[in-house]
Amino acid sequence: MNKLFKALNDPTRRRILDMLKEKDLTAGEIADAFNISKPSISHHLDLLKQAELISATREGQFLRYSLDTTVLEDALQWLMNLVEQKNNDEQ
Amino acid sequence: MNKLFKALNDPTRRRILDMLKEKDLTAGEIADAFNISKPSISHHLDLLKQAELISATREGQFLRYSLDTTVLEDALQWLMNLVEQKNNDEQ
Repeated sequence: MNKLFKALNDPTRRRILDMLKEKDLTAGEIADAFNISKPSISHHLDLLKQAELISATREGQFLRYSLDTTVLEDALQWLMNLVEQKNNDEQ
Repeated sequence: MNKLFKALNDPTRRRILDMLKEKDLTAGEIADAFNISKPSISHHLDLLKQAELISATREGQFLRYSLDTTVLEDALQWLMNLVEQKNNDEQ
Protein backbone atom coordinates (compact mmCIF):
# COMPACT_ATOMS: atom_id res chain seq x y z
CA MET A 1 0.00 0.00 0.00
CA ASN A 2 3.03 2.34 0.20
CA LYS A 3 3.00 3.13 -3.52
CA LEU A 4 -0.69 3.86 -3.24
CA PHE A 5 -0.43 6.34 -0.37
CA LYS A 6 2.67 7.93 -1.91
CA ALA A 7 0.70 8.45 -5.12
CA LEU A 8 -2.28 9.91 -3.25
CA ASN A 9 0.00 12.25 -1.26
CA ASP A 10 -0.18 15.08 -3.80
CA PRO A 11 -3.05 17.45 -4.70
CA THR A 12 -2.29 17.40 -8.47
CA ARG A 13 -2.43 13.61 -8.56
CA ARG A 14 -5.65 13.54 -6.55
CA ARG A 15 -7.14 16.05 -9.00
CA ILE A 16 -6.07 13.88 -11.96
CA LEU A 17 -7.91 10.94 -10.35
CA ASP A 18 -10.99 13.12 -9.89
CA MET A 19 -10.85 14.02 -13.60
CA LEU A 20 -10.45 10.38 -14.66
CA LYS A 21 -13.39 9.45 -12.46
CA GLU A 22 -15.56 11.39 -14.95
CA LYS A 23 -14.03 10.02 -18.17
CA ASP A 24 -10.90 8.57 -19.77
CA LEU A 25 -8.47 11.24 -20.98
CA THR A 26 -5.22 11.61 -22.96
CA ALA A 27 -2.09 13.08 -21.31
CA GLY A 28 -2.65 16.24 -23.40
CA GLU A 29 -6.22 16.65 -22.17
CA ILE A 30 -5.02 16.19 -18.60
CA ALA A 31 -2.13 18.67 -19.05
CA ASP A 32 -4.55 21.29 -20.49
CA ALA A 33 -6.38 21.39 -17.14
CA PHE A 34 -3.22 22.28 -15.22
CA ASN A 35 -0.86 25.20 -15.34
CA ILE A 36 2.20 22.94 -15.19
CA SER A 37 4.62 21.50 -17.77
CA LYS A 38 3.90 18.32 -19.75
CA PRO A 39 7.02 16.53 -18.36
CA SER A 40 5.72 17.27 -14.89
CA ILE A 41 2.29 15.83 -15.77
CA SER A 42 4.05 12.76 -17.22
CA HIS A 43 5.85 12.30 -13.91
CA HIS A 44 2.54 12.44 -12.01
CA LEU A 45 0.97 9.97 -14.46
CA ASP A 46 3.98 7.64 -13.98
CA LEU A 47 3.56 7.60 -10.20
CA LEU A 48 -0.18 6.93 -10.58
CA LYS A 49 0.59 4.07 -12.99
CA GLN A 50 3.21 2.58 -10.63
CA ALA A 51 0.57 2.57 -7.89
CA GLU A 52 -1.81 0.85 -10.34
CA LEU A 53 -4.32 3.66 -9.87
CA ILE A 54 -4.51 4.32 -13.61
CA SER A 55 -3.80 2.41 -16.79
CA ALA A 56 -3.07 3.56 -20.33
CA THR A 57 -4.41 2.31 -23.66
CA ARG A 58 -2.76 3.30 -26.93
CA GLU A 59 -5.06 5.16 -29.33
CA GLY A 60 -3.13 5.95 -32.52
CA GLN A 61 -0.31 8.27 -31.43
CA PHE A 62 -1.91 9.01 -28.05
CA LEU A 63 -2.20 7.19 -24.76
CA ARG A 64 -5.63 7.34 -23.14
CA TYR A 65 -5.65 7.04 -19.36
CA SER A 66 -8.38 5.49 -17.26
CA LEU A 67 -8.94 5.06 -13.53
CA ASP A 68 -8.34 1.59 -12.02
CA THR A 69 -10.30 1.02 -8.87
CA THR A 70 -8.97 -2.38 -7.70
CA VAL A 71 -6.14 -0.97 -5.55
CA LEU A 72 -8.44 1.79 -4.27
CA GLU A 73 -10.95 -0.82 -3.16
CA ASP A 74 -8.25 -2.52 -1.05
CA ALA A 75 -7.31 0.79 0.59
CA LEU A 76 -10.99 1.54 1.13
CA GLN A 77 -11.43 -1.81 2.87
CA TRP A 78 -8.47 -1.16 5.19
CA LEU A 79 -9.69 2.36 6.07
CA MET A 80 -13.24 1.12 6.63
CA ASN A 81 -11.99 -1.58 9.01
CA LEU A 82 -10.13 1.07 11.03
CA VAL A 83 -13.16 3.35 11.27
CA GLU A 84 -15.76 0.65 11.89
CA GLN A 85 -13.85 -1.25 14.57
CA LYS A 86 -13.21 2.01 16.40
CA ASN A 87 -16.84 3.10 16.18
CA ASN A 88 -18.02 -0.31 17.41
CA ASP A 89 -15.74 -0.01 20.46
CA GLU A 90 -17.37 3.29 21.36
CA GLN A 91 -20.94 2.08 21.29
CA MET B 1 -5.47 15.57 2.84
CA ASN B 2 -1.70 15.72 2.17
CA LYS B 3 -0.74 15.26 5.82
CA LEU B 4 -3.10 12.33 5.98
CA PHE B 5 -1.68 10.47 2.98
CA LYS B 6 1.88 11.31 4.05
CA ALA B 7 1.12 9.80 7.46
CA LEU B 8 -0.43 6.68 5.90
CA ASN B 9 2.53 6.25 3.54
CA ASP B 10 4.54 4.09 5.96
CA PRO B 11 4.00 0.47 7.09
CA THR B 12 5.01 1.16 10.74
CA ARG B 13 2.48 4.00 11.01
CA ARG B 14 -0.26 1.88 9.43
CA ARG B 15 0.54 -0.88 11.93
CA ILE B 16 0.32 1.61 14.83
CA LEU B 17 -3.16 2.60 13.60
CA ASP B 18 -4.16 -1.06 13.42
CA MET B 19 -3.00 -1.49 17.04
CA LEU B 20 -4.90 1.61 18.22
CA LYS B 21 -8.01 0.33 16.43
CA GLU B 22 -8.09 -2.44 19.07
CA LYS B 23 -7.42 -0.25 22.14
CA ASP B 24 -5.78 2.93 23.43
CA LEU B 25 -2.06 2.49 24.17
CA THR B 26 0.87 4.37 25.72
CA ALA B 27 3.98 5.18 23.64
CA GLY B 28 5.83 2.48 25.64
CA GLU B 29 3.24 -0.17 24.83
CA ILE B 30 3.41 0.80 21.16
CA ALA B 31 7.25 0.76 21.15
CA ASP B 32 7.26 -2.72 22.73
CA ALA B 33 5.52 -4.12 19.64
CA PHE B 34 8.26 -2.86 17.30
CA ASN B 35 11.95 -3.58 17.01
CA ILE B 36 12.79 0.11 16.59
CA SER B 37 14.01 2.87 18.93
CA LYS B 38 11.67 4.93 21.12
CA PRO B 39 12.72 8.24 19.44
CA SER B 40 11.79 6.68 16.10
CA ILE B 41 8.37 5.62 17.48
CA SER B 42 7.93 9.17 18.83
CA HIS B 43 8.58 10.54 15.35
CA HIS B 44 5.94 8.22 13.87
CA LEU B 45 3.46 9.23 16.61
CA ASP B 46 4.18 12.91 15.87
CA LEU B 47 3.37 12.50 12.18
CA LEU B 48 0.16 10.64 13.04
CA LYS B 49 -0.79 13.44 15.47
CA GLN B 50 -0.06 16.14 12.87
CA ALA B 51 -2.41 14.34 10.49
CA GLU B 52 -5.00 14.26 13.30
CA LEU B 53 -5.17 10.47 13.01
CA ILE B 54 -4.41 10.01 16.70
CA SER B 55 -4.71 12.06 19.86
CA ALA B 56 -2.97 11.80 23.22
CA THR B 57 -4.38 12.05 26.75
CA ARG B 58 -2.07 12.49 29.74
CA GLU B 59 -2.32 9.70 32.32
CA GLY B 60 0.05 10.45 35.19
CA GLN B 61 3.53 10.45 33.67
CA PHE B 62 2.37 8.70 30.48
CA LEU B 63 0.55 9.78 27.34
CA ARG B 64 -2.14 7.41 26.17
CA TYR B 65 -2.82 7.44 22.42
CA SER B 66 -6.14 6.79 20.75
CA LEU B 67 -7.31 6.60 17.15
CA ASP B 68 -9.25 9.57 15.74
CA THR B 69 -11.51 8.61 12.88
CA THR B 70 -12.82 12.02 11.71
CA VAL B 71 -10.05 12.65 9.16
CA LEU B 72 -10.19 9.00 8.06
CA GLU B 73 -13.90 9.35 7.38
CA ASP B 74 -13.21 12.29 5.04
CA ALA B 75 -10.59 10.26 3.14
CA LEU B 76 -12.95 7.31 3.03
CA GLN B 77 -15.65 9.51 1.52
CA TRP B 78 -13.29 10.81 -1.17
CA LEU B 79 -12.07 7.29 -2.07
CA MET B 80 -15.64 5.96 -2.12
CA ASN B 81 -16.69 8.71 -4.51
CA LEU B 82 -13.85 7.78 -6.87
CA VAL B 83 -14.71 4.08 -6.83
CA GLU B 84 -18.49 4.46 -7.00
CA GLN B 85 -18.58 7.00 -9.81
CA LYS B 86 -16.26 4.83 -11.87
CA ASN B 87 -18.28 1.67 -11.22
CA ASN B 88 -21.51 3.49 -12.14
CA ASP B 89 -19.97 4.56 -15.47
CA GLU B 90 -19.20 0.96 -16.30
CA GLN B 91 -22.70 -0.37 -15.74
